[in-house]
Amino acid sequence: MPRERRLRYAMVGGGQGAFIGAVHRRAMALDDQFELVAGAFSSAPERARESGAALGLADDRNHGSWQDLLADELRRSPEDRIDLVSIVTPNHVHYPVALAFVQAGFHVVCDKPLVHTAAQADELVAAVRRAGTVFGVTYNYTGYPMVREARHLVRSGALGTLRKIAVEYNQGWLATAVEHSGGNKQADWRLDPQRSGNAGTMADIGSHAENLAATVTGLRPDALCADLTVFGAGRRLDDDAQLLLRYAEGARGIIVASQVAAGLENDLRLLVSGTLGTLTWRQEEPNQLVHSPVDGPRRILTRGSPWLGESAKRAGRIPAGHPEAFVEAFANVYLGVAADIRAHAAGRPADPLEADYPRVEDGALGVRFIEKVLESAASERKWTSLS
Amino acid sequence: MPRERRLRYAMVGGGQGAFIGAVHRRAMALDDQFELVAGAFSSAPERARESGAALGLADDRNHGSWQDLLADELRRSPEDRIDLVSIVTPNHVHYPVALAFVQAGFHVVCDKPLVHTAAQADELVAAVRRAGTVFGVTYNYTGYPMVREARHLVRSGALGTLRKIAVEYNQGWLATAVEHSGGNKQADWRLDPQRSGNAGTMADIGSHAENLAATVTGLRPDALCADLTVFGAGRRLDDDAQLLLRYAEGARGIIVASQVAAGLENDLRLLVSGTLGTLTWRQEEPNQLVHSPVDGPRRILTRGSPWLGESAKRAGRIPAGHPEAFVEAFANVYLGVAADIRAHAAGRPADPLEADYPRVEDGALGVRFIEKVLESAASERKWTSLS
Amino acid sequence: MPRERRLRYAMVGGGQGAFIGAVHRRAMALDDQFELVAGAFSSAPERARESGAALGLADDRNHGSWQDLLADELRRSPEDRIDLVSIVTPNHVHYPVALAFVQAGFHVVCDKPLVHTAAQADELVAAVRRAGTVFGVTYNYTGYPMVREARHLVRSGALGTLRKIAVEYNQGWLATAVEHSGGNKQADWRLDPQRSGNAGTMADIGSHAENLAATVTGLRPDALCADLTVFGAGRRLDDDAQLLLRYAEGARGIIVASQVAAGLENDLRLLVSGTLGTLTWRQEEPNQLVHSPVDGPRRILTRGSPWLGESAKRAGRIPAGHPEAFVEAFANVYLGVAADIRAHAAGRPADPLEADYPRVEDGALGVRFIEKVLESAASERKWTSLS
Amino acid sequence: MPRERRLRYAMVGGGQGAFIGAVHRRAMALDDQFELVAGAFSSAPERARESGAALGLADDRNHGSWQDLLADELRRSPEDRIDLVSIVTPNHVHYPVALAFVQAGFHVVCDKPLVHTAAQADELVAAVRRAGTVFGVTYNYTGYPMVREARHLVRSGALGTLRKIAVEYNQGWLATAVEHSGGNKQADWRLDPQRSGNAGTMADIGSHAENLAATVTGLRPDALCADLTVFGAGRRLDDDAQLLLRYAEGARGIIVASQVAAGLENDLRLLVSGTLGTLTWRQEEPNQLVHSPVDGPRRILTRGSPWLGESAKRAGRIPAGHPEAFVEAFANVYLGVAADIRAHAAGRPADPLEADYPRVEDGALGVRFIEKVLESAASERKWTSLS
Repeated sequence: MPRERRLRYAMVGGGQGAFIGAVHRRAMALDDQFELVAGAFSSAPERARESGAALGLADDRNHGSWQDLLADELRRSPEDRIDLVSIVTPNHVHYPVALAFVQAGFHVVCDKPLVHTAAQADELVAAVRRAGTVFGVTYNYTGYPMVREARHLVRSGALGTLRKIAVEYNQGWLATAVEHSGGNKQADWRLDPQRSGNAGTMADIGSHAENLAATVTGLRPDALCADLTVFGAGRRLDDDAQLLLRYAEGARGIIVASQVAAGLENDLRLLVSGTLGTLTWRQEEPNQLVHSPVDGPRRILTRGSPWLGESAKRAGRIPAGHPEAFVEAFANVYLGVAADIRAHAAGRPADPLEADYPRVEDGALGVRFIEKVLESAASERKWTSLS
Repeated sequence: MPRERRLRYAMVGGGQGAFIGAVHRRAMALDDQFELVAGAFSSAPERARESGAALGLADDRNHGSWQDLLADELRRSPEDRIDLVSIVTPNHVHYPVALAFVQAGFHVVCDKPLVHTAAQADELVAAVRRAGTVFGVTYNYTGYPMVREARHLVRSGALGTLRKIAVEYNQGWLATAVEHSGGNKQADWRLDPQRSGNAGTMADIGSHAENLAATVTGLRPDALCADLTVFGAGRRLDDDAQLLLRYAEGARGIIVASQVAAGLENDLRLLVSGTLGTLTWRQEEPNQLVHSPVDGPRRILTRGSPWLGESAKRAGRIPAGHPEAFVEAFANVYLGVAADIRAHAAGRPADPLEADYPRVEDGALGVRFIEKVLESAASERKWTSLS
Repeated sequence: MPRERRLRYAMVGGGQGAFIGAVHRRAMALDDQFELVAGAFSSAPERARESGAALGLADDRNHGSWQDLLADELRRSPEDRIDLVSIVTPNHVHYPVALAFVQAGFHVVCDKPLVHTAAQADELVAAVRRAGTVFGVTYNYTGYPMVREARHLVRSGALGTLRKIAVEYNQGWLATAVEHSGGNKQADWRLDPQRSGNAGTMADIGSHAENLAATVTGLRPDALCADLTVFGAGRRLDDDAQLLLRYAEGARGIIVASQVAAGLENDLRLLVSGTLGTLTWRQEEPNQLVHSPVDGPRRILTRGSPWLGESAKRAGRIPAGHPEAFVEAFANVYLGVAADIRAHAAGRPADPLEADYPRVEDGALGVRFIEKVLESAASERKWTSLS
Repeated sequence: MPRERRLRYAMVGGGQGAFIGAVHRRAMALDDQFELVAGAFSSAPERARESGAALGLADDRNHGSWQDLLADELRRSPEDRIDLVSIVTPNHVHYPVALAFVQAGFHVVCDKPLVHTAAQADELVAAVRRAGTVFGVTYNYTGYPMVREARHLVRSGALGTLRKIAVEYNQGWLATAVEHSGGNKQADWRLDPQRSGNAGTMADIGSHAENLAATVTGLRPDALCADLTVFGAGRRLDDDAQLLLRYAEGARGIIVASQVAAGLENDLRLLVSGTLGTLTWRQEEPNQLVHSPVDGPRRILTRGSPWLGESAKRAGRIPAGHPEAFVEAFANVYLGVAADIRAHAAGRPADPLEADYPRVEDGALGVRFIEKVLESAASERKWTSLS
C-alpha cells in the first residue's frame, strides 16, 4: 500500500527566536505526516520572510503577513493548497487568524490559550461548526501516553468515584526580572496584557493545568475560588495563581500555577484520587504513571508496556525503557489532527482512538475558565460559579 | 564526667493497641535520656493497669486514672517523683490533664492538636507561664534534621524573600469505611467530635501541616480561605481539607490535608520558595532536602553531611547514608524537652540549639488556626482574618 | 541567510516491522537536516519495495537490494545523488554494505556493532581513511546531552583522577523464550550467530556499555575478565555478560549487560568516580546527571540549564524541564554527521563541537573489545590483555 | 500478662567516639528488651571506665578489660549475671572475646566480620555448638523489613529460578586520606591489617554484601573471581573490591564494594533477578522494595503495608509511610537474638519468625568467603572454587 501523502501546512508566527514554533515544526516532522509549504512567521514582514527563507520556503509561499498567506492560499488549486494552518503567534493574534482561516475552510491548529475572551471563543466554536473543519488546540501535555493512560484508568473506573484532583504547575523562569534583562522574547509579550490577555501565568500554564485535569477526569468544576498574585515588581499580569475547585459530582480540587517558583523548571504534576486509588504523574518524568490502589501495592506503569490501555499504546513509538518525551507528546496532538483531517477528506468518521486531540471546544472551555478565575480573583465571595 | 541521670516520666494514655503511645516510648528510649516510671495508660482503669503491667511498671505507680497518677506523684519525694508527664490520649483529654499537671508544677509533653478551643489553649499558655514549667508539643515532623536544615536555610536568607509556601499532607487510611470494620482504635476516636474536637483531618494532620510551614518559615498567615469536606458516608468530621493562605509579608500559601487519598501512606510534602530559590522536602524520604537555587544546579542536602547548619547536624545521630527516620525525629523533640528540663533544674538558660522543640505557644497557635479554618469553612467570605 | 539544503540519504535495511529503522528516520526528520530519497529496505526484494513505497519513495529509487541501490546512485548526477547512506540491517550485513559505499565515496552511518570481526573493522577503517569520507556509528546513547556533560566534567578534571567506571545495562526482553513465540523479528536475527555475530547480548548492548564508558572517560581498558552466560534454553549466543576491567591508568571498572533481567526495560546506568567526586546517570531518566562531589552536596544537573558545558548546551533543543529523550539523542548523532558532511563538502575542517559523533574508529574499537571478551570468556586466565 | 524482664547485657568495645557501639545501644534500647548493666568499653582501661561512667554503669560493673568483665560476671549469681555480651570492638578482638564468653556459657552478639581467619571461625562455630548458646552476628542490613520481604519473595518462588544476583556497596569516606587527617578512629583501625584483618573494604562492607546476597537468595556462590585494589596512597589494605560470582545452580553474580567512591554515602544496592522477575532494593531508601515482574507493571512494596509476607510484617513497628530506618533494622537483629535467648531460657524451640537473625555459621561463611576473595585476588586463575 503506497503511503498517504503528507499534509501540507502553513505556519503563522513561530519565526526565528521563538521557542514554540520550532517545537511545533519538530513535532510535525517526527512522524512524516506533515510538510511545511508556506508561512507568515512574524508580524514584522521583513523578519517573517527571513524566517521563512531560513526554513527553506519557496519565495512565493513565504509571506510578510497572515493576510497575504491566506489570500495566496485561496488563489491556489486544491492540489497545491495547504491542508492546515498552525497558529503559534502571541495570544492576541490567535483570534483573527483562526477565525479567518476557519471561515475560509481551512483546518487549524492553534496554540493555547485559544483566544482572549469567552465571547471570541464562542464565536470561533460556532465558526468551526459552521465550516465543519478540523480544529485542534495544542494542550500538548495531554498528548503524553501516560496522561492518556491516566485518562483511560479514570474513565474505566479503576479509581472508583473521584474525590480529589490536584494539578500543580511550577516554573521559575519569571522568578527574576527577566523582562528587563533584554532579549527574552517570551517574557516580552507574555507579560504584556495587550498581547497576552488579561491573565498571565494563569493563561500561560494555568490553562494547561485546567485542561489536563479536565482531560484526565472528564469532569469540569462548577465553582472555583482564586487568588492571583503579581510578585514581580512592575508587572501587570499575575505570575502566580492558586485555586480551589468544587465539582458538581462532589470532588474537590486545587490548581496551583506559578512562574516565580525560583529554581524549578517545568514541574507539572497531576494527582487524581478516587475511592479505589490514586494516580500521580509528573511531566518531568513523563514515561511513568504511578497508580496507588487502595488494596494492593503501588504500580509503576511505564510507556510502552503491554498492559496499558489502547490509547496509551497507540501514543507510543518505541519500546518501554527507551524514553519518549515532550516532542512526542506534542506530535501526538498533531497525529490526532492528521487522522481527523484524513477522515474528513475521505468523508468518513474518524477512529476516535486515532483522532485523539483537544478540540476548539476544549480551548473555549479553557478561555471561559480563565475568565471565571479573573472574576473570582476580583471578588470577595468565596465561590464563583462556573455554570 | 558521670552521666546525668535519666529523666523520670509518666505516660497518660497510650496503652495497648494505641499506635502513638509506643512511638513516644521508643523515641524516649532511643537516647537513654528518659525512664518510664509511672503511668495511667487508659481511661478504663482495668485496661490502664494491664498496659502498665505489660510495660513493667511497679504496681504502686501503675494507675487506673490520671487523677490517681497525679495525686500519687504529688505525695512522692522529689528524688522519686516524675520529671515530666507525656500525654498521648485522645485529643479531648489533653486539656484537663495538661492543665492539672502544669498547675501542679510538672513538666509536660502533649500530643497535637493541643486542645479543642483557643480559649483552652490560652488558659494553658497562661498556666505554663505562671508555673514556669517546660511544655513541649509533639509536632514531631519538625524534629527531622532536614526540616531543621530547611528552617536554617530560610532563616539565614538562602531563599531570599519568601513568596510561596505549600504543604500537602495526603494519607489514604480513611479512604474506606474503616470505622465500621471494627478494631480500628484510631478511627474510632478520631472520627468522633466528642473526643477529636470540631475538626477531623484538619486537626489530625492539618495541624502538622500548619506547624511545619510556620516552623520552617517563621511566618504565620494573616488570612485564610478553607474548604473542608466530609467524603466518608456518615462521618461527622472533615476527612479532607484545602486551604489558601495569605501572609502579611506578601507570600501566598496552600495547605492540603486529606485522609481519603486512597493508596497513599503518609505523604507529607513541603515546598518553600523565595526570590532566590526553592526548597522541597518529603516526609517519606526524610533524609534529603532538595534545594533549587535560582542561579545554579539543584542541590541534594543529606542528613549527616558536613555542610549542614548546626541545628541539622545536632539533630542527627549516625553518618550520612545510614538513614534515620520517624522515631529519631520524634526523639529529637524529646531531646529538646530534656535539654530544657535539665537547664530548668540547673537554673540556667537552655542552649537554644539544644532546647529545640515546639512549645505550648506553638500548640496554641495551631488550635487558633484550626478554629479559623472552621470559621472560614462555614463562611461565604473568601478571606477569614487570622489576626 | 537561506537555509542549507537538506542532505539526501538512502537507507539500507529498516523496513516494515523493524524497530530501529524507524528510529533512525525519526531522528533524521527531527531537525529537518535530512531527506529520505532512496532505499533498499530489506534483503527480500519484494518486502524491500513494499517498505519503500510505504515510505513514499519514488519507484526508481526504491530498490530490491543494496547492490541495486549503489549501482543506481553511482549513475546519478551529483545534484541528485545521495549524500549518505544509513545502514540499519542485521549485523552481518554491515560489513559488505559499508565497505562498498565507502569505497564508492559515499558518507555512511552504520549501526553498532560495526562488523563481526576486528579484521573486518580494520579493513573498514582503512577504507574510510583512503576515501576520506564521513563515517558515523550510532552509539546513540552518547548523543544524550547529559552524557556529553558527563564527558565534559570528566575531561575538564571535575572528578580528579578516575578510579571507578561502572556500566550496567539490564534489559528483560530475552527473559522468556520470545524467539519461539513467533513474530519477534529482533529476537529472530539477534539470537542467530550467522546474522548477529559471535556475541549476543555482549554485542547488542554490551557494545553500547563499552562505548559509553570510553566516550565519557576517554579511557580504554587494557585488560578484562569476562563471564558470558547463555540462560535461555537452546540459545547459541550469550544473553548475559559480566566483565571486570583494568585500566592502564589504574582505574578499575565493570560492565554488566543482561537481556534476561526479567521485568527491566532499558536500564542503562553509568557511574564514573574519581578522586574528587562521582557522576551517575540513568538512561531511563536521561535529562539529569547526578554529580556527587567529595566536598559538597550532591548536584543535579539538568539538560537545558545555563550552567552546563558547551557540548551539552548544543545538544539540547528546548528549555530545561521540557524533557528530551531517546530520539533527540539519536538525532544528535546524526546532527554531528551532518555537520561533518557539510564541512567536508565545503572543504573546511568541522567545528568539533558540531561534528560530535562516534567515528568508524570507535566502532572498530568496539568490535575488538567484543573479540577480546569472547577470548576471555573462553579462557582460564583471569586477565586478557587488550593492548 | 506482666512483661518479661529485660535481658541484661554487657558491651565490649564501643566506648566514646566509636560510631557503632552507640548504634548497638540505641538498637537495643528501642524495643525495651535489653538493659545495659556492665561493660569493658575500650582496650585502654582508663578510657574504658570513662565511657562506662558516662553510660551510667555502676562502678563494680564498669571494667578496664574484657577479661575483668568476664571474671566478674562468672562470680555473680544468675539473677544478677548478664544474659549476653555484645562485642563491638575492632575486628581483631572479636575472636578471643567471643570464644571466651561462649566457652563460659554466655550468649553473644558480635559485629562483622566475625573473625580474621576461617580456622578461627570454625573453632568458634564448634564452641557455640558445644556450648549450646545463642550467637548472633550483626549483619544489620538483613534486619530491614524490605530485605526480609525480598527473602520471602525469592524463597516463595515469586522470581522463579534465580539467574542474576548483584550487590553494589559504594561509600566515599576513604576517597581522601582521612587516615592522615587525625581523629578518625574508624579509619585508624580499619586500615591497619593487625586490627582489621587481611582484607579492608572487602571485610568491612564486602562482608555485608556477601551476607545480603546469601540471606535473600539462600544461595552461596561456588566460584569467584576477585580484583582487589588499593587506591589510597600508602594503604596496606584494599579500599575497593570487584567480584564475579558463579553459583552451582547456574546463577551469576557480582559484588562491588568500594570505599573510595567519592561523594557517595552508604549506597548499598541489591538486585536479584530470576525467570519471573527482578527485585531491587537500596539501603538509602530502605522502606521500599521494587518488584518488576515479567508479566505486569512494576510494584513498589512498602514497609508496613498489609500485603507483605509475615517476616516483613513482624519486622516493622509503625504504619506504612512513617519511615523506619537503620536503627530499626539493627534492632531487628537484636530482637531475633532476644527471642532466641528467651526460648533458650524457657527450654523451648524458638519461633523461627521471631528468632530471625544471622548466626555464627553465617559469620563463619563470611570469613571463609573473604579468605577465598583474598586467594582469588592473588591468583592468575580466573575462578577460585568456594567449595
